[in-house]
Order: sequence, then structure tokens, then C-alpha cells
Amino acid sequence: MKTLFERIDASIIARNSLVCVGLDPDPVRMAIPDVLQFNKEIVDATKHAAAAYKLQFAFYEALGLLGIKAMSDTVKYVQDTAPGTVIIADCKRADIGPVAAAYARSMFEVWGFDAATVVAYMGADTVEPWLQYPDRGIYVVCRSSNAGAKDLQDLRVRQGEHERRVFEWVADASSRWGMAGQNVGIVVGATYPDEMTTLRRTHPSLPFLIPGVGAQGGDADAASRAAANADRRGFIINSSRGIIYASKNPAHFARAAREECEKLREQINAALGSIGTRKA
Amino acid sequence: MKTLFERIDASIIARNSLVCVGLDPDPVRMAIPDVLQFNKEIVDATKHAAAAYKLQFAFYEALGLLGIKAMSDTVKYVQDTAPGTVIIADCKRADIGPVAAAYARSMFEVWGFDAATVVAYMGADTVEPWLQYPDRGIYVVCRSSNAGAKDLQDLRVRQGEHERRVFEWVADASSRWGMAGQNVGIVVGATYPDEMTTLRRTHPSLPFLIPGVGAQGGDADAASRAAANADRRGFIINSSRGIIYASKNPAHFARAAREECEKLREQINAALGSIGTRKA
Repeated sequence: MKTLFERIDASIIARNSLVCVGLDPDPVRMAIPDVLQFNKEIVDATKHAAAAYKLQFAFYEALGLLGIKAMSDTVKYVQDTAPGTVIIADCKRADIGPVAAAYARSMFEVWGFDAATVVAYMGADTVEPWLQYPDRGIYVVCRSSNAGAKDLQDLRVRQGEHERRVFEWVADASSRWGMAGQNVGIVVGATYPDEMTTLRRTHPSLPFLIPGVGAQGGDADAASRAAANADRRGFIINSSRGIIYASKNPAHFARAAREECEKLREQINAALGSIGTRKA
Repeated sequence: MKTLFERIDASIIARNSLVCVGLDPDPVRMAIPDVLQFNKEIVDATKHAAAAYKLQFAFYEALGLLGIKAMSDTVKYVQDTAPGTVIIADCKRADIGPVAAAYARSMFEVWGFDAATVVAYMGADTVEPWLQYPDRGIYVVCRSSNAGAKDLQDLRVRQGEHERRVFEWVADASSRWGMAGQNVGIVVGATYPDEMTTLRRTHPSLPFLIPGVGAQGGDADAASRAAANADRRGFIINSSRGIIYASKNPAHFARAAREECEKLREQINAALGSIGTRKA
């Protein structure tokens, strides 16, 4: 049985792509009103060029029971039509013990996701229940992409002689919590390339999930160069709005999504190509 | 229109109770199998003595769409049969901007909760969208009840000359984020009475939601004395398992829940009575 990050690596290689497409339904922006149909057309158009899909739980939940049903059906559709593509629940769950175990059961068993995002303010107890699934895993939010990320994450913490920032503490802890890069990665926003460079230097093999390109202002070139591991992989870059809302025309939105997804794939691959053998 | 904490205060006074009953369905432990029916009987038996109900989102979500439907129907049932009783979503949502706005819409508009728990690792951006509802509000997780709470929350952070622990930083920020104790409170575990005493001293009017009594080992007496504000209120103490699973007998579980709820109410009120006028 492959671990989560072996599966992501295989998906990246099979599609020659480090793109994660964010399926974030917004009734105001979708080219067609039906969430499931919208997602199906996006998946059909992008599955050859997407290593992973990421579903933002909040946007489904805000549509009530029917929205959550559409989320669940979307996961099944990706499993059926794009086998090998990894499906991530961007749910940022942040609870402990039996509650975290219930969330892991929800995400992995009830809805069928391969991975989930987790916030570890409550410590190791937040993470441990998620690691009971040998072929699944989590990304712990380390450095988020928002401006307010600095509020708490940039605070300097001391332990004995050792001083570091809160997000560095989370990265260090995350690399201890998992099985050496096999089931715990971290979320690092594309909007903070300097912090990303630091994190890659200190954690050469920790997998990154990178939000924040496009609408949020992050630069995919800089992020790719900062995040690449020695194999010029080790990360995926998520784009949601830039791909799925590239066109509001019901006749063209899927084709526009395909073009934007392929464009981002080429952009990342070109940035990685420019690294040469420096990291190898 | 009353603010959230004016409503909670009114509910405390009307029921002479600072008890919050946790409705956390666990199919293995429930005396009867139907979640909604179980909750209805618990609510009928405890509503005279409960200032609030707290629903742990994870336990409903782990039961799939039917579980979430039961959660939504439970909220409606409390609204209909126990008007004035505050209903809290223990969802620990931890996202930002449009995503946090979608979660606030879910919790307040779709499911109908009065309050939600939030984790603010991503800073002020996590909190702001929740504050757009004048009669609703949030509890920010400050000091959680688990052993691993110490991992991150006890780290000492420096800002200029000022040094404090991470959970103290969160309490200080929470008191700035809200409208002076009207729509932002904090979660403080009963398992840490010393930290609770510190937090009450530094934040005389910040409302506390206190989990961790009973099964988790926290002491309701010590927590009540530590958490009381000058009016001998300013907090609610949640108990879930100790009340709703007091009996597994289908004929007696509701009566047992009533007795445990009333017992906890008396215990808290006795502890507050023993404070005398010291805090007043």
C-alpha cells in the first residue's frame, strides 16, 4: 500500500504536473448553476493536467445539505474518472482526541478524501488521530497565505536557548509528527516566498501544499523555485479561482479552465527547469 | 437587538444555571439509536436547567448527511421548545476571508446556531467575518483542555519588552477583536485552573466557555471560582458525556441526564456562593 505522499508523487509524475485544482463552488461566479455538473465538467477538462483536486469544505457547507451531497458526489466522480488523482479536503479541522478521530472518519471514510488540512493550535493531540490511516495523510497549516498570517505565526518563541517563529515551530513539529514525509506535510502560502525558502532549507523533504497564487497575489514561479526539493518536486500549487472561474460562459468555461490549468502546469515546470541541477 | 453575551447572560439568569449541555451523539453510547430522538429527550429533560447547548459538529459529520440533518433538526427543536437557550456550534473553524465568511454563513444562517468556536492560528482574518452578525458571536480557543495544549499554547512569545505565553497572546487579541465582551469570548479548559485564574485576572469581563469537566478530569468547583467575574457569572461550563450518557437504559437516560444536569448546576452555584462578596 502506498503512502499519501508516494501517491501524490506518482500522480505528479504521471501527469507531469504539480498543479492542484481547487474546486470551490461559488453560485455567484459559476458559469452553470449546478455544483456537481460544474465540477464534473471542470474535472473532465483538467484531469490530464492536475495532480490533485482540493475541495474547500466551507463553500459546500454554506450551501447546506445539498452542497455537502454535491461535495461527496464530486469526490466519487474524481475517484471514478481520474483514478490516481489525489483528493484533498481543505477543511482546516482543529480539534483533539475523539473529536479529531471523528473528523478523520468523516473526511477519509464518510466523504472519501485522501488528505485533509489541519490546524494544530491544540498540539500533537490534534494530529495523532489522523495518522491511523496508512494510505491517507494531512497537511498542517504552517504559514498561511493571508496578510494576518503574521499576527500569530511571526511571533518569536523561546525554548531554552532556541528561538524561532511560531510557524517554524509548527514546521519542526510537523516533521516529527509524521512518518518522515510520508503522511504529514505543511501548508505554506505562495504569498510568502522568503518564509518558504527558509522552510525548504530547514525541511528538505517535507511536502508542501501551496495556496495563494493568482487571485491572492502569490507568484507561481517564485513559489516553485522556493519549494522544490532535490527531485524538483515535493510540493503542489493550488489554484482555484484562476482556473475554475476563467470564463463565465456556459459554453466555454471548461475549455477556459483546461487552458489555465495547462498554463499553470507549464509555468511551474518552466520555473523548475530553470533551477538546473543546482538542487540535485 | 441583544448581543450574544447579553443573551447568554439572560439565559443564565432565567435558569439560574451556568451549565451548557453538550449534545455529542455517539452511536455506541446512546441509550436509543435515533440521534434526533435522543437529543429531543435530553433537551426536554434538561432545558429548565441548561443555559446553553453545545453541539460538537464532528460527531454529527461522522454520521454523514443523515447526521448533519439530525444536527440541523436538533437546532430547530431547541429554538422551538427552549426559546432563549443559546445554541453553540463547537466546530473550531480555522480559516480566513471568504472561507471564514462561508463558515459563518453555514453556522449562523444555514444551521441556525447562535455562536461558534473558532481557532485563530491564522490571525485576525480568522475572526473578522464572524463578527458581521450583530446578535451572534464566537469563542476563540485560547487554552484547550487536552494534555497537548501545552505543546504550542505554553510557548513564551516576545514582542519588544513584553513576554507572555501563546494562549495569553490569544486572550489579549480576542479581547481586542470583539466589541468589549459582547461578541467574542474564549475557550478555557477546566483542566487548567491556574491558567484560568490568570486569564480572569487579566481579562475581568471576557466571557469563558469551559470544557473539560467530568470525563476529561476538570473540577467544576475550582473552575467556577477561577472563572467567575465580578457578577459571579461570565462563563458557562460544558458537560457532555457526564450528562447525556449518565444512563444507557432507554427508559431512564433522560431522567438521569436531568439529575446530572441539575447536580452540576447546584455544584457550580454552591461554588459561586462560597466566593462570598470577595469578587464583587
